[in-house]
Amino acid sequence: MRKYCYGDVMKTEAIVATIEECTGELLYLKHVRKKTQLKKETETSSELIFTYEMSDETIVYGLGENVRGINKRGHRYISHCSDDPSHTEDKESLYGAHNFLLISGAETFGIFIDFPGKITFDIGYTCYHTLQIEIEESNADIYIIEGRTEQEIITKFRKAIGKSYIPPKWAFGYGQSRWSYYSQEEVEAVVEAHRKNKIPLDSVYLDIDYMDHYKDFTVNSETFPDLSAFAKKMKQKGIHLVPIIDAGVKIEEGYETYEEGVANQYFCKNEDGSDYVAGVWPGRVHFPDVLKKEAREWFGNKYKVLLDQGIDGFWNDMNEPAIFYSEERLKEVLSSMQEYQDKNLDLDMFWKFKGSVNELSNNVEDYKLFFHEIDGKKISHDKVHNLYGFQMTKAAGEAFLALKEEERILLFSRASYIGMHRYGGIWTGDNISIWSHLLLNIKMMPSLNMCGFLFSGADIGGFGGNTTEDLMLRWLAFGIFTPLMRNHSALGTRRQEVYQFENLPAFRNIITLRYALLPYIYSEFVKAARLDGMLFKPLGFVFTQDDFARRVEDQLFYGESIMLTPVYEQNAKGRYVYLPERMKFMKMKTVDDYVEEIMEKGHHFIEVAIDEVPFFIRENHIVPISKGGENVEEVDYKNLTLLHYVTTQATYELYNDDGYHKEYEKGLVFETIHVKSEEK
Amino acid sequence: MRKYCYGDVMKTEAIVATIEECTGELLYLKHVRKKTQLKKETETSSELIFTYEMSDETIVYGLGENVRGINKRGHRYISHCSDDPSHTEDKESLYGAHNFLLISGAETFGIFIDFPGKITFDIGYTCYHTLQIEIEESNADIYIIEGRTEQEIITKFRKAIGKSYIPPKWAFGYGQSRWSYYSQEEVEAVVEAHRKNKIPLDSVYLDIDYMDHYKDFTVNSETFPDLSAFAKKMKQKGIHLVPIIDAGVKIEEGYETYEEGVANQYFCKNEDGSDYVAGVWPGRVHFPDVLKKEAREWFGNKYKVLLDQGIDGFWNDMNEPAIFYSEERLKEVLSSMQEYQDKNLDLDMFWKFKGSVNELSNNVEDYKLFFHEIDGKKISHDKVHNLYGFQMTKAAGEAFLALKEEERILLFSRASYIGMHRYGGIWTGDNISIWSHLLLNIKMMPSLNMCGFLFSGADIGGFGGNTTEDLMLRWLAFGIFTPLMRNHSALGTRRQEVYQFENLPAFRNIITLRYALLPYIYSEFVKAARLDGMLFKPLGFVFTQDDFARRVEDQLFYGESIMLTPVYEQNAKGRYVYLPERMKFMKMKTVDDYVEEIMEKGHHFIEVAIDEVPFFIRENHIVPISKGGENVEEVDYKNLTLLHYVTTQATYELYNDDGYHKEYEKGLVFETIHVKSEEK
Repeated sequence: MRKYCYGDVMKTEAIVATIEECTGELLYLKHVRKKTQLKKETETSSELIFTYEMSDETIVYGLGENVRGINKRGHRYISHCSDDPSHTEDKESLYGAHNFLLISGAETFGIFIDFPGKITFDIGYTCYHTLQIEIEESNADIYIIEGRTEQEIITKFRKAIGKSYIPPKWAFGYGQSRWSYYSQEEVEAVVEAHRKNKIPLDSVYLDIDYMDHYKDFTVNSETFPDLSAFAKKMKQKGIHLVPIIDAGVKIEEGYETYEEGVANQYFCKNEDGSDYVAGVWPGRVHFPDVLKKEAREWFGNKYKVLLDQGIDGFWNDMNEPAIFYSEERLKEVLSSMQEYQDKNLDLDMFWKFKGSVNELSNNVEDYKLFFHEIDGKKISHDKVHNLYGFQMTKAAGEAFLALKEEERILLFSRASYIGMHRYGGIWTGDNISIWSHLLLNIKMMPSLNMCGFLFSGADIGGFGGNTTEDLMLRWLAFGIFTPLMRNHSALGTRRQEVYQFENLPAFRNIITLRYALLPYIYSEFVKAARLDGMLFKPLGFVFTQDDFARRVEDQLFYGESIMLTPVYEQNAKGRYVYLPERMKFMKMKTVDDYVEEIMEKGHHFIEVAIDEVPFFIRENHIVPISKGGENVEEVDYKNLTLLHYVTTQATYELYNDDGYHKEYEKGLVFETIHVKSEEK
Repeated sequence: MRKYCYGDVMKTEAIVATIEECTGELLYLKHVRKKTQLKKETETSSELIFTYEMSDETIVYGLGENVRGINKRGHRYISHCSDDPSHTEDKESLYGAHNFLLISGAETFGIFIDFPGKITFDIGYTCYHTLQIEIEESNADIYIIEGRTEQEIITKFRKAIGKSYIPPKWAFGYGQSRWSYYSQEEVEAVVEAHRKNKIPLDSVYLDIDYMDHYKDFTVNSETFPDLSAFAKKMKQKGIHLVPIIDAGVKIEEGYETYEEGVANQYFCKNEDGSDYVAGVWPGRVHFPDVLKKEAREWFGNKYKVLLDQGIDGFWNDMNEPAIFYSEERLKEVLSSMQEYQDKNLDLDMFWKFKGSVNELSNNVEDYKLFFHEIDGKKISHDKVHNLYGFQMTKAAGEAFLALKEEERILLFSRASYIGMHRYGGIWTGDNISIWSHLLLNIKMMPSLNMCGFLFSGADIGGFGGNTTEDLMLRWLAFGIFTPLMRNHSALGTRRQEVYQFENLPAFRNIITLRYALLPYIYSEFVKAARLDGMLFKPLGFVFTQDDFARRVEDQLFYGESIMLTPVYEQNAKGRYVYLPERMKFMKMKTVDDYVEEIMEKGHHFIEVAIDEVPFFIRENHIVPISKGGENVEEVDYKNLTLLHYVTTQATYELYNDDGYHKEYEKGLVFETIHVKSEEK
């Protein structure tokens, strides 16, 4: 792994390994200081532009959380953490900034750009064969990672960025969320409906309305009068409550967090040193300056308020940070409204009017107007924008380590930068209840894994918009494999707890399969986390010489034994699959009710009914499974059975632990399972 | 075809056949007058709710211009002509209202709801097995169409709604559009660049900026100083200019169209009889009351201004009608802005603020506030909303018939209702440069054909957003088969004339193939139009007993000889295809450079390079082709060659005409082509 330093970049903490600067020539990439030959819409003053010529066969992997395919070719991506709920293919930025690419072709190598501001990756967008990386400023560390295979490159990179976060084992159970469950009665009703219908459940998420007027670390005393007692009661039913924490702190006299923050200079500042004001859920807020050490420690320790009430999981939201409006811009826009009175608003004037209102939210210009204090220096937010979500989550993660050293606390975030994967997971933000977002979920998982984000998943069924029964079923049939398995939906949309639908047996069976597969899922997850591997792998990472396998975008290897082949099209009765080698096809309704069939290398069409989970087991591989359970605690590891496809013999190293403590830090201890042919 | 009349519905002119009311019991559908058992978000007062129970195997075709699949199951669609450029899967309405369904399963039948207001089609959205149709008011004609096959039902329906529009033959050439080419110099440069690069071209579209301040039937005298002379010059180069016409007429003293409309009561009215004011491109406009006979005749005759300058093609836009704002609502919103001054805008208040601005545009409440005069009666727009685009286009179509009886004038529209297909085509509106919109284009074509819209196509390459070279190439490889073949893109997006890209030979070849295939395309189009057939057919319409063929969503029969198998995924090197019978695979770069291969019934993966057009020829079928040409005039019908797959013998009936007159109205005259096996 070679490190090339340009200018004097701020340390992002993405890299934990000690890597000396390489003084030799930059490998693979061409450094073009000036504007390149590419036709571009805008001029640039960047001095850090790098290009690479791709052949027709080159595949470009990486970029973590982004739209489009596993192969990122043919689009322009901008690393800039963004709150945009419309994840259509034309979008250039989602919530994360994951500046890792893996080029695979005549030359195979990895690139990591360690830079906390905006980076543009033009991957054959402007010119079909040209990859161009443009870094907004002239300070960045560029890492080139070499290796014999894609997987070796990934592992080297992952070693350099540090071990991935492992949540408590209960967080691998099914979670139910909604914006919002407004009261403990509503939460209880949701839990009861799951239990009554024998739908396993481990957690219920509390969205913004559990708080008192959206104030972080407070609880609405009318709707959740005694959170401590309620959390305890829920835990007795095997349910963990997971509240949301937002980035913005409400401005309100008498509100402790606000007052402490103001008194101690913990908030982001205006140029003049006063506290910066933005509008989010509660209206006017200040943003904790989580890039300032003292403020970060303070903010992280605030989570104790909830830990002390028995809460052991959190999701950090709105931490791009999302801004509905800045106070200054809102004032301007409101006062500009007069100029439109009694005028004839034609195209230009009407668009200006409407634009001024819509550009209030998440306006990148606002990011230039507030400041962090980093090691005593004042730095405008836009220069370090992509670190905010990371550092907010690190705030919590470090506090948990200090407060509960031995314990695993669930933590995941919306915004992220590589490095944050050591402190928490991510969910993939505000998707929509559409089939293309199920496919996006599938394609995004290996890219996230490359960047260290293993504990991850999408809002199953879709957050915005109205879901349907068939979409829920097909999405769950993939979602049972994502480490974070959460059903979440937005205000005003159709209710999507699975008991709202007709085909209850199918929902019950599919979700129960998650629990049945847990021994395998958890074992493979911890191995990937501790051994710097990937849980979800593109087929080409395993069959590196198989040209067809390298192009497959809708099948994934999942751990060492399984190939996933989800159905993601509405009204489809099955799908095409490509087998790079002979495998066993599994079509499961329950642990006892499934069809298995050996299929040869090559192309097949597999029929998959709406209540079936389709996947393949590799030859001489084993998948240990349990009988399931109503929550993770109930999963019986003592009576595992084995799914397998053994023609000679197979060995599986099963990892397990108590689920609450960090035993894995002492090294992984495995139980070895052997199967010989004819044994089943 | 049975007609059931409920209440007293306004005649929409969709049906031209004389069909007596059926007094017997309603077939197939169950009429449930009250709110049904379906869980719904809102209560309804509709007395016209119809349900049908679908089996797992039932396929629901139809609904013309809409999102999602050929099989419409699993979503809720609302017939309500809407100007919404984001055609994501969750959208319920696009620009057209095409109330035709074809149920195919244990029972196979067609349904047409003739009603000019809002209709909700819940096709297994709320309950997986229930189709529910809810008509907003209690007046509607319901038609049930029976037949032995899907195609027979379609033909019966199409006979009842009248013959589809046929444009001049040059309109089957390639058209280049942009919002906007601002001057005749710019248009000339575009034409020259095509000619210089040997890229065929027949037309250039003039978007809103050719007008003087967006005033219909005017021309900007600075940028197009002599349209007559310019149109003539262009025609000498084989290029037709196609200007846009908008629904709204600018309010401006001294502007003829405005003054005539006001003087003669030709505009839509407020409740109090004054002219209704909405804001669109020019700012304040009146809408011509095209539902009023005199106003429609007047508006149609206005096109003469442009016909007289040598224009022979038009596209009607913004005729849902799209409304940026109504004058009343804009006043209210602007004056409400004060209440937000110096307040703390929290979630609720900020959303109210932002919502009030965004809900200015295309607010359905506005449709209740203006009125038409229909046969002397005052009728609020919302009751007849879906007829506006139809009647605007009929205005032009009827005028053309009166002014140029023998001539074919190009005419297509954005908004439409069934019936409009007799007067013009449609383009599928403001799509985006994304791969899923190429797939949407593919899936929409047969649904449009069912409803009579044969002359149709999408904005190739995508209107909004930035296209890429690979998307352009793959889209064109499908787009050369759509009757309307137009490349169009929006203000502010990347230029997408094909000569902007690197791989010019590929663009040249693919577009030239359109011209080579023209003898077949035109022949099959006219046959479909005159014999009430479909140009694009789902596989299940031909192989009605083949369960797999019935489910295929991404292959289409195209005329009698061809099956289309476009590639629509980025970075894909090919695709899976299903052959319901043995066929010949054609992979064409040019008429002289292609690969052909016989493939057996079943599943295949076909490799398709980025510069190839893939399709299949059915056994014992013929595709007559020319050598191409730089425009349609140049296509040499005298030296046709034949692509074919003949194992015994085949006959093809080739239709042709002069392209400018309506010879087809006298009956189709064919040239018969025979091929016997071994002849090639």
